Amino acid sequence: MRDVTVAVALEGDFASAHTDGDNSLVIATDTMKNTAFAFAKDRLDGSIEAYGRALAEHFLTFVQVDRAIVNVREHDWLPIDVGGAPARDAFVRGGEGTRVATVSATPGGTTVEAGIEDLVVLKTTRSAFSGFPRDAYTTLPETDDRLMATKISAIWRYGSPDLDADRTFGAVRATLLEVFADHDSPSVQASIWIMAREILARHEEVDEIRMVLPNLHHWLADLAPFGLTNDGEVYVSTTEPHGLIEATVRRGEEA
Amino acid sequence: MRDVTVAVALEGDFASAHTDGDNSLVIATDTMKNTAFAFAKDRLDGSIEAYGRALAEHFLTFVQVDRAIVNVREHDWLPIDVGGAPARDAFVRGGEGTRVATVSATPGGTTVEAGIEDLVVLKTTRSAFSGFPRDAYTTLPETDDRLMATKISAIWRYGSPDLDADRTFGAVRATLLEVFADHDSPSVQASIWIMAREILARHEEVDEIRMVLPNLHHWLADLAPFGLTNDGEVYVSTTEPHGLIEATVRRGEEA
Amino acid sequence: MRDVTVAVALEGDFASAHTDGDNSLVIATDTMKNTAFAFAKDRLDGSIEAYGRALAEHFLTFVQVDRAIVNVREHDWLPIDVGGAPARDAFVRGGEGTRVATVSATPGGTTVEAGIEDLVVLKTTRSAFSGFPRDAYTTLPETDDRLMATKISAIWRYGSPDLDADRTFGAVRATLLEVFADHDSPSVQASIWIMAREILARHEEVDEIRMVLPNLHHWLADLAPFGLTNDGEVYVSTTEPHGLIEATVRRGEEA
Amino acid sequence: MRDVTVAVALEGDFASAHTDGDNSLVIATDTMKNTAFAFAKDRLDGSIEAYGRALAEHFLTFVQVDRAIVNVREHDWLPIDVGGAPARDAFVRGGEGTRVATVSATPGGTTVEAGIEDLVVLKTTRSAFSGFPRDAYTTLPETDDRLMATKISAIWRYGSPDLDADRTFGAVRATLLEVFADHDSPSVQASIWIMAREILARHEEVDEIRMVLPNLHHWLADLAPFGLTNDGEVYVSTTEPHGLIEATVRRGEEA
Repeated sequence: MRDVTVAVALEGDFASAHTDGDNSLVIATDTMKNTAFAFAKDRLDGSIEAYGRALAEHFLTFVQVDRAIVNVREHDWLPIDVGGAPARDAFVRGGEGTRVATVSATPGGTTVEAGIEDLVVLKTTRSAFSGFPRDAYTTLPETDDRLMATKISAIWRYGSPDLDADRTFGAVRATLLEVFADHDSPSVQASIWIMAREILARHEEVDEIRMVLPNLHHWLADLAPFGLTNDGEVYVSTTEPHGLIEATVRRGEEA
Repeated sequence: MRDVTVAVALEGDFASAHTDGDNSLVIATDTMKNTAFAFAKDRLDGSIEAYGRALAEHFLTFVQVDRAIVNVREHDWLPIDVGGAPARDAFVRGGEGTRVATVSATPGGTTVEAGIEDLVVLKTTRSAFSGFPRDAYTTLPETDDRLMATKISAIWRYGSPDLDADRTFGAVRATLLEVFADHDSPSVQASIWIMAREILARHEEVDEIRMVLPNLHHWLADLAPFGLTNDGEVYVSTTEPHGLIEATVRRGEEA
Repeated sequence: MRDVTVAVALEGDFASAHTDGDNSLVIATDTMKNTAFAFAKDRLDGSIEAYGRALAEHFLTFVQVDRAIVNVREHDWLPIDVGGAPARDAFVRGGEGTRVATVSATPGGTTVEAGIEDLVVLKTTRSAFSGFPRDAYTTLPETDDRLMATKISAIWRYGSPDLDADRTFGAVRATLLEVFADHDSPSVQASIWIMAREILARHEEVDEIRMVLPNLHHWLADLAPFGLTNDGEVYVSTTEPHGLIEATVRRGEEA
Repeated sequence: MRDVTVAVALEGDFASAHTDGDNSLVIATDTMKNTAFAFAKDRLDGSIEAYGRALAEHFLTFVQVDRAIVNVREHDWLPIDVGGAPARDAFVRGGEGTRVATVSATPGGTTVEAGIEDLVVLKTTRSAFSGFPRDAYTTLPETDDRLMATKISAIWRYGSPDLDADRTFGAVRATLLEVFADHDSPSVQASIWIMAREILARHEEVDEIRMVLPNLHHWLADLAPFGLTNDGEVYVSTTEPHGLIEATVRRGEEA
C-alpha cells in the first residue's frame, strides 16, 4: 500500500498561451493528473524517485517542454499489529516526517533530489548559544544549556539518478537523525553544517544538501513566584516569533 | 521528556462577573496557566490522568467552582536511535494519534476519560457497504469491496478514577487497532459497534466509549480511457464532501 | 452567486446498522450529499435558514429519522468594482466572519439557530481587568487599560422558525459589532453579557444567545532596554496559551 | 491601528558560524525581533515599504551583512460602524487578501517589491478553455463557459524604492481586480498576461510582476439522475488535485 502526493511542473515554450490565448501547446493540468493516475497503475512498484522519473521523462517527450519537474511526497503507513504479526491489509498512519523526491528532467539529463520534510526533533542537552555580538537591541542572554527543537526540512541532490533510492534514503535519514542526537550544538547554524558534513562524508551518492531549520523556541517557565526552582524542567513551547536558519552545503566545500 | 497541552474549564458561581462586572470570584485564566506550569514541575511524573486529576482537584478547592474539567493531550516523542541504542536526550516526534485524558472533578466525585484522537487508519480489504435504501437522490452503487480509511477519535470513560492509566491506555489502544485491522466491516456504523463491543468485553475498567469516524473517501481512478483496468489498484484520496459516523456504546448495552 | 458548506446529521432508529450490520435503514451520506446538491438547484433562492429547513424537513420524512439537523455556512463574496459599479459576474471573497444557520427538525417542530463565526474584532480602549482574586499562582497584574482582541463565535436561537432570516441576521450582526465597539469592558465575561443583553433587548426574535470568546492576548513589547517608552503603542500578538470565555444568555434571565 | 507580521533574512559572511561554531558574527534572531519591535515604535507611521526599508537598511549597517531582506505583511482591519460613523478604537478584521512588501537592501542599492496574497476571486462568466492538445491521457472536455476561481498571489517590483507606496499599492490592486472582473479568459495562462500587461501599462512605477494562480476547480454537480438540469447553476468546489499556473512578466516584454 502506497500513499503519494504528486506535483508536476512543466517549463517550456508556452508563451503563446499567455500572450495570444493560444492553447495548442498547453498540456492541460487535468492531463497531467490523469497521467499520474495511469503511471501509478504499473510504475509505482519501486521507489518514488523511479515513479517521478518515469513521469518526468514522459512529459519531456512533448516537444514544447524544456524541463519537467515531478515532486512526489510519500506518506508513511505502518502495518497494524494483529496477534503479534503485522497485518497485510490494515495500516496506521505514521508521522516521523514525510519522504520527498523531486526529479527534474531536461534534454540534457535528469537530476534526482531526495529528502525529508516535517521531521520534528528535539534534544534536551548539548545545545548552546553564546558569543554572538550585542548591540543596542540585543537582550538575549548567552546560554550553554538550552533545549533545541526544530522541524527539519532536508533535501539532498544525488550525483547520478541511477541508484538504489530506497536504501540510500533510509541510510541518509538514519545518519541525519543519529548525528542530530549525538552532536554538541554551539548554534543551529553549526548543527546544519555538522549534519550536512557527515551526510556528505558517509554517503558518496550525495552531492549537495540543503537544510531549513526553524528554531522552535521553548522558554523556561518562571516558577520563582511560586517558590519553585526550574532547572531546565518546565518549558513553554512557543511558535511565533521564531528564528529560521537555512544553508546549503556542497561536496568539495566540506573539507 | 513529556510534551503536553493542557486545557482547563471551570464551571460555578461566576454570574456576577458577567452581570455586574464584578471579578472578585473570577479565577484568571493566567492563574490557571501558572498553576499548570507549577504542577508540571512535580506532578507530571505519572500518567496524564494523574496530572489532570491533581489540577482538577486543586481548582475544586475554590469555593466558587462547582466543576473543574482538565483536558490533557500528550504528544508522542520517540527516542532517536544512536548506534543501536535509544538516546536518552534526543527525540523524534511520532504521529500515530494523540493520547488524550479528561478529568472532571466535582464535590460529588471525579470522573476520568481517556482516549486517542487523530489516529488515521486504513484497511484495503474486508470493507463493504450495501443493502441501504435507495430513494430519488441515491446514486451510490452497492459494494462488497471498498477501501476503508478514517481518522479515529475514540474517548472512553473509566468506571473509577483509580486505575493504572498508562497500562490501560496501551491495552485499549492495542485492542482498538487490532479489531480495526481484523474485522469484516459491513459499514462504518457496524465497525464502531464491533470495536466498542470488544473494548468493553476485554477491558472491564471501561464503562462507555464514544467514537467519531469520518469516512475518508477514496474513489477508484477511472483508468478505462487509457486502456487500463483498475481492480482496486489506484484510488484518489478526497477530503470534502465526506460522511461522518458517530456513536456512543455503554456497558450494559453490549450484550 | 452563493457559496455554502452544508453538514447534515440525522438521529433516529439506526441501532440495527451498528449492532447487526443491517443497512436497510441507513441513509447513505452520499445520498445526503446528492440531496443537498439537488435542493441547491431551486431551494437556495432565499436565506440559508430556508434552505436548511427544506433539507431538514425533507430528511424528517424518512420514518427512521427522529431528528434532522442541517448546518449551513455561507461564505461571503463581494462584487468587484468595475468602473465604479459592482460587477454582476465577478466577486472577491470577503472575510468578516462566516454566517451560520442550524436547523433542527423533529416531528414536534423545527428550531432555527443563526449566528456568526470567526468574526475577529479588536478594541484598543475601554477594556480593563482588575479585582480578581490572587492566590499563590497569580502573577497577572491588574490593568484598567488593555487591548482586547477576540474571535467571536455567536449563535442565537430564534423563538420561531418563521421570520425574515436575512434581515434579522443583518440586524443582530450590526448590534453585536456596535455594542462590541461601544461598550466599556471590565472583563471578557462582562462583555459577553453586555452584548447578549443588548441583542435580546433589541431583537425580540432572539430567545437565547451563546458566545465563545477566546482572549487573543497582546502583550506590551518591552522597549525599555532600548531606551524607549511604550505607552500602549507596540504589542506582540500571541496565540497559545490563551483564555477562552463562554456563556449562554436566555431571554427571561436578562432583567 | 496597524497589524503587521515581519520576517527578516540576512545574507553575508556567516560561514564561520556554520563551520567553526563561531557566533561572533551571528546576529541573533532574537535581536532581529527586538529591532522590529523598536522600529515599530516610531518608524511604522507610513507605508510598510518604508518600515521594511528602515529595517533592511539598519541591518545592512552590520559589516558582515551583504543583503538584508525584510518582508512585511499587513493584515487588514476595518473600523466598526457605530451609529453610522466609523469607530476610532474598534476594528473588525477584513479578509480581502493580505498586503505584502519585501525590501531587499544591499550596498549597491535597495529594491522594493509590493504585492497581495490570498486574494480569492471568482468569475462566473467569460472563462473558457479549449484548443489544448489531446493525448492518450487527455479526458478533459473543451469548454467555452466555465467558472473561474483562484487565489491570487501577485508580487510586483518597483523600478525605484522612492515612491508613494500606499497610493500605488491601492491603484495596482484596483487594476488587478478590475481587469480580473472585466476580461475574457481563454485560459488562466492568458488571464495572467492580460492582468500583468494592464498593470505594466497603467502603472509605470512597476517594472515586473509575478503571479501564481491555483485553479480552484468547481465541477458541475450531476443533477440528471434526479431529473434536473444543471445549466451552470450548481457547482461542487474542490481543492485537490488542482492546476497551478504561474508566470513573470517584465516591462519591455509586454509589447
